[in-house]
Amino acid sequence: MKLQLSDIDDLARGAAILGTGGGGDPYLGGLMLRQALLDGGTVELIDVEELRDDAFALPFAMMGAPTVIVEKLPNGSESIAALRAMEAHVGKKVEAILCAEIGGINALLPLVLGARLGLPIVDGDGMGRAFPQLQMVTYHIFGVSASPMTMADEHSNTVLLQAKEAIEVERIGRSVVVAMGGMAQVCLYPMTGADAKRSMVRGTLSLALGLGRAIHVARKSSTDPFEALLRFLEGTEYYKHCRILFEGKMADLLRETRGGYAFGRARIDGMGPYAGRRMDVQFQNEHLIAQEGGDVRAIVPDLIAVLDSATAEPITTEGLKYGQRVRVLGISAAPIMRSSQALAVFGPQAFGLTQPFTPVEVLNPVEASTAPAVEEKS
Amino acid sequence: MKLQLSDIDDLARGAAILGTGGGGDPYLGGLMLRQALLDGGTVELIDVEELRDDAFALPFAMMGAPTVIVEKLPNGSESIAALRAMEAHVGKKVEAILCAEIGGINALLPLVLGARLGLPIVDGDGMGRAFPQLQMVTYHIFGVSASPMTMADEHSNTVLLQAKEAIEVERIGRSVVVAMGGMAQVCLYPMTGADAKRSMVRGTLSLALGLGRAIHVARKSSTDPFEALLRFLEGTEYYKHCRILFEGKMADLLRETRGGYAFGRARIDGMGPYAGRRMDVQFQNEHLIAQEGGDVRAIVPDLIAVLDSATAEPITTEGLKYGQRVRVLGISAAPIMRSSQALAVFGPQAFGLTQPFTPVEVLNPVEASTAPAVEEKS
Repeated sequence: MKLQLSDIDDLARGAAILGTGGGGDPYLGGLMLRQALLDGGTVELIDVEELRDDAFALPFAMMGAPTVIVEKLPNGSESIAALRAMEAHVGKKVEAILCAEIGGINALLPLVLGARLGLPIVDGDGMGRAFPQLQMVTYHIFGVSASPMTMADEHSNTVLLQAKEAIEVERIGRSVVVAMGGMAQVCLYPMTGADAKRSMVRGTLSLALGLGRAIHVARKSSTDPFEALLRFLEGTEYYKHCRILFEGKMADLLRETRGGYAFGRARIDGMGPYAGRRMDVQFQNEHLIAQEGGDVRAIVPDLIAVLDSATAEPITTEGLKYGQRVRVLGISAAPIMRSSQALAVFGPQAFGLTQPFTPVEVLNPVEASTAPAVEEKS
Repeated sequence: MKLQLSDIDDLARGAAILGTGGGGDPYLGGLMLRQALLDGGTVELIDVEELRDDAFALPFAMMGAPTVIVEKLPNGSESIAALRAMEAHVGKKVEAILCAEIGGINALLPLVLGARLGLPIVDGDGMGRAFPQLQMVTYHIFGVSASPMTMADEHSNTVLLQAKEAIEVERIGRSVVVAMGGMAQVCLYPMTGADAKRSMVRGTLSLALGLGRAIHVARKSSTDPFEALLRFLEGTEYYKHCRILFEGKMADLLRETRGGYAFGRARIDGMGPYAGRRMDVQFQNEHLIAQEGGDVRAIVPDLIAVLDSATAEPITTEGLKYGQRVRVLGISAAPIMRSSQALAVFGPQAFGLTQPFTPVEVLNPVEASTAPAVEEKS
């Protein structure tokens, strides 16, 4: 499938929702992708089954604090420098590019790279959402080595990092990200087609595109975009448990960029059916936990998305502002992301949270949340 | 020339003096070198003229804060991992190892590596002293590229860094050093034999050995080690301007390890002929400036060494302690280190000092300092 210019906004919107607050503002990635297509590039999405088992497939991502990307745009040379450094080291040409995460700008930048170099993009990613650390991917869970990893900055300075443990790649790489100005473009988890087949969360680029399009179509036909969004997600394999957890006004926001991450917490005061209630959402690049008082309403690795309450446009953590009217959604992560092996790597404890993982559908039985809130709006 | 077991202490002592307070405690390097020789290794020092013009010569050094080395010893695998990573990248076998700096432990670790791998060491280095940053070498002044640089930690995690500017290699590499626990073993400025011939400060390993031996011999024959030291240096091409600047007691010491460096300042209260006077010595890994009140007595890149006032044993900045009786020496840097090109890279301004470089022999006309102080002691 070839991506069209008219698909970009929908893909960016869907990716921002699956980015669960992080992954970087996809608006910028959308602009870069538009330019790449206007320059004559082609984005060809292929199914992972189309890869030869011995094909050289390479995930690509931006690494750093989403708050930095807003002010420091990639110039396009970084990604190519990172990929070429990997090719030089491995001694093989890359045959297909993979997404590391489907969330935010990282759903779009691999497509820009593919369009610039004429390489196909495999439909899928390594988490079906976004995460702040590079060991937090299914590629790692399924035993693909994170290193060699190549990194590049805007001067085409490159770093090639090799370590036995993914966590070491993350730790040393993060310090390089800081030295590179809070943002670097990286190629990591170099793998074969066979590796990709056994370790990918499949089809998530199409899913993000479909999700963004469902909202778009609802807006055009003046129907409730939240209803369209919930209906679309309920029809998917991964995200079928989705709930509107809360609706209210952004009342307080604490945010700091530290050690290459955007940390923070948002307080939302309830409105409409939620008047008199309060929700707190905590994030490290991505939303980690949504709570009402002591009650957990959704927790990582399930997805927590904050959307404009009128348009269903997703809001990334760096876009959160006092006074915004928002709805908070809880969405089930792909089953592959909820295994005990997976939870050991990116469950609540990996982020220093003490609350255990509980599926969003267990925390929020359907009759209590989704139905009334949607009716209220439509 | 083959280095003998009995040479090690002398070489370490001479290197510590030329290390001008930094370069890391050579005691540890001496122990490692002794073990390498006892294990059957050979240290073969060769003259740079013995290198073929197209030989692959590779400088090796430890990068980090000298204060860290004291508590975190290299296990020996780091240096080999860094060298092998460079060989893999360049696609050539290393034929000779160079020292980056002659100061402190960095005069000895390349010899350990050479002994372990059976590679000769070229007699010389890239500065004739020690410096805290990796662009501060004659290799850089003479246009050899600092990158690719390879770095390794104690887990054999490796980083290969490529940047156009040496200062970028330093900046990004320094952040990796911090992530690697404050210390990394690095190979950098990969060069040809021809490069080495035009850019090295020649013969400094022999000079350090001779300097350490002169002190050793004086002690054994119960003559004044300072007189022997001054006489030896006066006979050298580089270090012939040497002065005893001050004698006194360590009265105050401020030290902090920050950003991969050991920063600090020492106050020495005068004794003997210097009673009633006070000297302040400021350092960033190495001593940068020695002052009495507002008067500069010696300034970087000239060498400032602090020695035990009885034995002439050099004291590194991390070995400075309240109450020590010390003599402070000012020694001329090699002429190659005092050119305007060189001063732009490692003159006083490079360290944030406002005082201009003035040669130690201009600041201290010979009759005013050396002679009386030595006579006092003997």
